Parts: sequence; structure tokens; C-alpha cells
Amino acid sequence: MRMPLRQEVHNLLERGRDRQLRLAVTGLSQAGKTAFLTSLVNQLRHAGVEAKLDLLPAAREGRLLGAQRLNQPDLGVPRFPYDPGMAALRDTPPRWPEPTRGISELRLQLRYRPARRGWLTPETAHLTLDLFDYPGEWLLDLPLLQHDFASWSESQTHHQGPQRQALFTRWLEGVKTLDPAATADEAQLAELADAYAEGLKRAKQAGFSDLQPGRFLLPGELEGAPVLQFFPLPALSLSPEALAALPADSVYATLSERFRYYQQQVVRPFYREHFRRFDRQIILVDVLGALNAGPERFEDLSRALRQLMKSFDYGQRSLLSRLFAPRIDRLAIAATKADHVTPEQHPALVRLLEALLAEPLKDLRFANVPVKALSLAAIRATEAREVSHEGKRSPALRGTTLDGEEVLVYPGDVPTSLPSPAFWTSQGFDFPSFRPMATPQEALAHIRMDAALEWLIGDKLA
Amino acid sequence: MRMPLRQEVHNLLERGRDRQLRLAVTGLSQAGKTAFLTSLVNQLRHAGVEAKLDLLPAAREGRLLGAQRLNQPDLGVPRFPYDPGMAALRDTPPRWPEPTRGISELRLQLRYRPARRGWLTPETAHLTLDLFDYPGEWLLDLPLLQHDFASWSESQTHHQGPQRQALFTRWLEGVKTLDPAATADEAQLAELADAYAEGLKRAKQAGFSDLQPGRFLLPGELEGAPVLQFFPLPALSLSPEALAALPADSVYATLSERFRYYQQQVVRPFYREHFRRFDRQIILVDVLGALNAGPERFEDLSRALRQLMKSFDYGQRSLLSRLFAPRIDRLAIAATKADHVTPEQHPALVRLLEALLAEPLKDLRFANVPVKALSLAAIRATEAREVSHEGKRSPALRGTTLDGEEVLVYPGDVPTSLPSPAFWTSQGFDFPSFRPMATPQEALAHIRMDAALEWLIGDKLA
Repeated sequence: MRMPLRQEVHNLLERGRDRQLRLAVTGLSQAGKTAFLTSLVNQLRHAGVEAKLDLLPAAREGRLLGAQRLNQPDLGVPRFPYDPGMAALRDTPPRWPEPTRGISELRLQLRYRPARRGWLTPETAHLTLDLFDYPGEWLLDLPLLQHDFASWSESQTHHQGPQRQALFTRWLEGVKTLDPAATADEAQLAELADAYAEGLKRAKQAGFSDLQPGRFLLPGELEGAPVLQFFPLPALSLSPEALAALPADSVYATLSERFRYYQQQVVRPFYREHFRRFDRQIILVDVLGALNAGPERFEDLSRALRQLMKSFDYGQRSLLSRLFAPRIDRLAIAATKADHVTPEQHPALVRLLEALLAEPLKDLRFANVPVKALSLAAIRATEAREVSHEGKRSPALRGTTLDGEEVLVYPGDVPTSLPSPAFWTSQGFDFPSFRPMATPQEALAHIRMDAALEWLIGDKLA
Repeated sequence: MRMPLRQEVHNLLERGRDRQLRLAVTGLSQAGKTAFLTSLVNQLRHAGVEAKLDLLPAAREGRLLGAQRLNQPDLGVPRFPYDPGMAALRDTPPRWPEPTRGISELRLQLRYRPARRGWLTPETAHLTLDLFDYPGEWLLDLPLLQHDFASWSESQTHHQGPQRQALFTRWLEGVKTLDPAATADEAQLAELADAYAEGLKRAKQAGFSDLQPGRFLLPGELEGAPVLQFFPLPALSLSPEALAALPADSVYATLSERFRYYQQQVVRPFYREHFRRFDRQIILVDVLGALNAGPERFEDLSRALRQLMKSFDYGQRSLLSRLFAPRIDRLAIAATKADHVTPEQHPALVRLLEALLAEPLKDLRFANVPVKALSLAAIRATEAREVSHEGKRSPALRGTTLDGEEVLVYPGDVPTSLPSPAFWTSQGFDFPSFRPMATPQEALAHIRMDAALEWLIGDKLA
């Protein structure tokens, strides 16, 4: 189909302007970021050959010709370890790729044939795709910018269930006799901060997600630095004026100072240097893992997601729009590990994800940020089967557990709305952790990676 | 003794101005930085009580009243781990403290009685002592600032003995077929850089010291980033003009760009943010370890020290004075682990150290930087004994090896000048690695820590 010249020039300019796309992938730890990015790169490299990408029109129509890795522009950011990830998946037995820590980056150049040809349209065109992967935990620190130390302390000691409190026993014991007005003893503060960080790490291991300050979990080069040696002071009985009047070497003033430094030197730079440059974003959520772990951790995931989504709420008065004016123009939210439930449960999984995110989704739609919720499995670990029992056929999954045991299971029904107390007591949910399937093909088997790609980059390949 | 008022006011102002001293401790890895700083803090905390500090007049005269830890000013710099170090030394059996990686910091406040009292002199005075510990490897990168990529490549492939070359086999194999003019393949460059970093790490383990780029050994948050994925290109046959004309995506241009980024974003910030703020510096050198390891590694230490000392050469045309104008006004160079040879060998140890540093010492004296060479043991691991053999009494050391074996040894004579080829073949040198002695006292046993302290801070306690 020939286009009018004016339209064609417009498209040409558009394509010029759009030659680069910065796509960020995030999620709380264990959400499947590394598997997602490894699969994404793998699918694009094998598009047009073995990769099954029917839901991505450019691939279905044979117009996506392939992808090549290029040198990334940011020399100081670790490169996303695609090759080690593929090597792990091709090992015998296959292993999941090692999780990344901190931010990493990979640049691909996609070659494709434009869908609509005109006088000026070239035979083939290029799209430079910069992929970023960063810990969702970093986004949990955004709300911390809105607080001063006293209000943050207040916010951190609310909503804590008994299971989570039990993980902080050592810190709680120490902090309850700490006098905010006393002269700070740096060894004692270091010890208490260590106990607090230990509590956060144990909470993370136990599956909790709403964990602040996020860098306490991945300290990197700040390990042992005073900026990571603070913690909330619960139940401050002094008035704000009395607190502000405490001397600079008091416990309260010392912790406040470190909190401010953390805000300014750790949290802000991430938003300034990386976040506001992203064009599009996918957030991965391990809904099934939280469902598996029980009510307190499911509620915690819900709270963490509400916090995390604040980074994407561009409402006029949002903190982020005032601070950094990001430009993300498309957002995807994906429930990962969809292959851990039987296929007929996938629609329920998406509805549960939407229920979990009901409030933030409303805000995003109000702020006119296009957003899509979906379920996917970046790298399939199971095959869908049917089993007959007493003449009745029912769906099941066949896979290999991490211990190497082959199993055939039915993990349970996914609730389509936030689970009620009755769900937890009467029904529950239980699935094993599977290891990846062996991949004899070059392209990795997946569920709906093509749908995610279509939403995230499809329009740029038109 | 009463002073004239004018003198007294001058002293008072001086003392005001001098209330803060920033003392840096460095040395190549294994030189004993952590033991030195742990002992230094320990001695000052116990000065005036059990610490034996007769060579430090302020302590000998009972005027040094003690030291207290304060909160450090740089919240983003790890705190020097004094308590874990002391805990290791007090363990059963005693262990050496864990080595630090990267930079760390500790602030002490010393309380002392000024030596000369006047009308305006207070009863007691304070000195704030900021202690810094950083890897000597970082200083080895200074000369890299003087190079472009081609001349650095040239400098790195000279003077390499067969023992060192053997550690780089994998890299040498790969790089010899690499065409500088070819289009860069980022996976291939990453692989070769990994082989180069592996060579550097093996060389470090084998006792080599002259290792560039220094951050390849301690990558921290730059692990996997392109800035750490370069390496020298040996035997470049193209002319400088031809090299400069290569396209931006060529192997040569890609590696050059990463080299420049390393210079500007990794090496320079250390000098800008830390180095130029130090007032005084002690450099620790494991002369005995190199003597133990044989001629190639001894020559390597000598070359590394010449490189490292360039950071302290403030001659008018020095790179550093042009770049950063540091203000170090006193320098100490100490051969550590003096307790690993018998006491009558200590003067020879200092003379050997001076011979190793003959050229840099000449430059420093010319540049009018006061410098002192000494030998010390920060934490004693042996006791000096005498043994009788066939009626002849000779010196010996008694200590416990790392394996827990109690031994009585005579490690050998320390040469007083750079060892000749004959020394290595005929005489050699051999000492075991000892573990620290048990320390029943609060203060750690040492050799000449007081002499080091007198040179580094004694004048500030007058």
C-alpha cells in the first residue's frame, strides 16, 4: 500500500526520532527479572528463525529479521550477563540463571522490514533497543524521599505482623532501651543497624517484599559505611520541636543525618541518573509465590506493589513528577511463572494481579499512562497435561523439581480477587519450585513473551 | 616553663589550626594495612595505661590521656572495622583480622596535656585524628593518567618475566590473533578482558605487585561493566595516525574509549575526592615477603614501589601537582612484619627498604617532603630467643605457624642492599607465616609502633 507523500515523510521523521528505545525491566527479588531478560534477548535474536512469536505481528509477518548485540553506551554500568544465563540453561541438568544484583544493561540492534512501504521508506530499518534491569527494591525507597526521619520512623513501625516482628527480635530488644536524646555511641549504633539489616535480610528470605531501606539488602561498596547505619526509632515520645533541638551528637540527630544522606546520596541519584531516562517499563510480579507463602506475605506483597507503583504515578502532584519528570510512555505489569499453574488458570492470574494493583492502576489510567496487565512464563519449566481420575479428565502440570524429581501435579485454583480469610484456611495453594526444561532448540520455550514484546516494542516495528 | 605571651598566642593559634589531622595508611595487598591500623587504634586507646609507647614522648611523659572514637565525617565511606579485628586477635587461637577492601575510615579524638604550659594554654587539649586506609593498588593507577591507550599498551607489555607471562597464557593466546582494525565484538572483548583480569588476579596471588589496572583486582560495583573490559594491545604495528583514523566501532577505538573512561571516572575521582585531602601518609611494604618469594617478585615489588611513590613526588612538573595539588607534609615508609626476622637484622631491613626506594627517596627529598624509613611489627607474632649450638649462642624466633605448629627458627640474614643474583642462588631467605600471639593484655604487643606514631602525630601532641 502506497501512502500519501506527506504521511510518508512524517513516518520517516517519526522513525528517525524513534530509532532508540530504552526499555527497563524491574521486579522485586525472585520475581524473575533475569529469566525474563535472558528470554527476551533470546527470542529477539531468534525471531524469524525458531522463536515462536505469533502474538508479535512483526515476527508473525516475517518482517523482524533479527537482533545483534552492540556495545552499550554506559561504560560504568555492568553488562547484563546474557551468555552466562544461556550457559546455565543449557547445562545438564538445566539451571536457572544467577540473579543479577544492582543495575545492568544490554544494547540490541533490531533489523526489520517496515510494514508499510512508500517512496522514501527504506527496504530495512533499525531499532536500537537499550535494555535495563534493576532491583525493584530500589523503587521501594522512593516514598522515603517524602519523609523526614521522624515520619519515616513512624511509617516503618506500622502494619507489622507478628511473623515479620519475630524476624527483628534482636533489633527490637536493643532499640527499646535506646534514648534518642543520649549522646550517640557509634559502636552501639553500628551494632543496632546491623541487627536491623539482619532483620530485613531474614524478612526478604522469608518472602517479605516491603523492605526499607532497600540498599540494606544489597549494600555493594557502601558495606560498613555510616550511611547504611541507621534504622527507624519507634514510638518517639518527644515533640517535633524537642527532637529538632537535640544536639548534633545525639542518637536522634545522628540517625536523622544518616537518613538525609541516604535520601540525597543513594536514593535520588538512581532516579536522576537512570529512572528518568527510561522510555518504557515492565514490572514483574511473583503473584503465585506470594499466594504460596500465605496471607501475611501476600498482604506484604500488596503493600510493596502499592509503594513501588508510586514511581510510575505521574499525577500532577506526584513526588516524582516534581522531582525528575520521567517520560515513561508505556507500562506493562506481568505475573510471572504462569507455567506454575495449569493453563485454564491464566485468566484468573491476570485478574488477581489487577485486583492486587487496583488502586495504582486507577491512578495510572487517570494520569493517562498506557498500562497493560498480563501473565507470562519467560522460560517454561513445565508442560501442560491432562489426567484421568475416576473417568473425569482434569488439567495437570508435568515438570522436574529443583531436587530433580519428576512430578505431575495440580497446584490449585488461583482466586480471581484478593483472597479472603476463608481462602487461606479452607483452600490454600501449593506448588513446587521447578527447574527449567532442557532446551534442545536455540529459542527458549515460553508463554506469552510475544504478547509482552508486542506491547513493549511492537509499535516501533510497524 | 613559661613562654613569652607572643609565643604562647602563636602556639594557641597553631593548636587551633592543627586540631584536625588526616592520616592515611596504604600498602600493597598483604603489606599489613589492617594489622597496622588495628594496632594504631589499640595503642592510642590504651596510651597512658598498658600500651608500651616509650618512643612517643607524649605517651612516655604521661601527657597522652587517651583516645575516643567519634562519628566519622564521611557517611558514604565504610568505617574501618576495628572491633571485628580485635575480636579476631582475641579469638582462640588468635587470627589475623580480615583484610579490608577499598577505602575505610575511622575518627579518633585524642586527649592530651600540652607539653609547654602558659597563661592561655588550657589544661588539656584535643586532636581529632581521621584515619584512612586504602589499597596501594589504587596508587599504581596514577601513572596510567599520563598515558594514552597506545603508550599504556606499550608500557604494560614491557619488563615481563617468564614467570609472570605464564600466568597470562589464556589472554596472550586470545589477543595475538586480535586485529585492532576489526569491528569490535563485545562478547569477544569481554572474554579477553576476563582472561586479562584472571591473569592479574593470579599474578597477585603469586605475589606480584605491579598490576594495572588496579580496579580489575577489586571491581566492586563495576563488576561486569565495560569500563573494566579493556586490556593492553601489545605490538601495535600501525602508526599513531592510522590508529587514530580507525572507526569508532573498531577494536582499537573501543578499547581506547574504555581506557579513557577508566582514567576519568575511576582513577581521577580517587585522587580528587580522597588523596588530596590527606595531611600525612604511611606506606607499608612487605619487604620480607618479597625476599621470601624470589628474584622476579622482588624486582616486581621494586617496580611497583617506584610507580606507587610517584603519587608522593611533588616536584614542580609532577603529574599530581599539576592535577590535584595534594598537601601531604610528612611521609613514613615502613617495612612491616619485622618480627619475622631476629632483632639484630632490623637495621639491615631498614637499609634494604631504603635501597629499594633509593630513587623515589631522592626525588622526595629534592621536593622537600619530609620522609622517614623504619621497620616495625604492628602486632607481634613471635618472640626473640637465643639458642646454643655447639657452645655458640645465636638468635632465633619462637612463634606458632598458621597451621598451629610451634617452631623455633632462624629465618636468615637480610641483605643490606638490593640482592645480587648470587644472593638468590647461594643464600636465599625463608620464613614461615606466623599467626598472632595471644594477647592477654588490653594493649597489643608491637615493635616500634611508637616510633611510627611519633613521626606521624608526635609534633601535634607537643
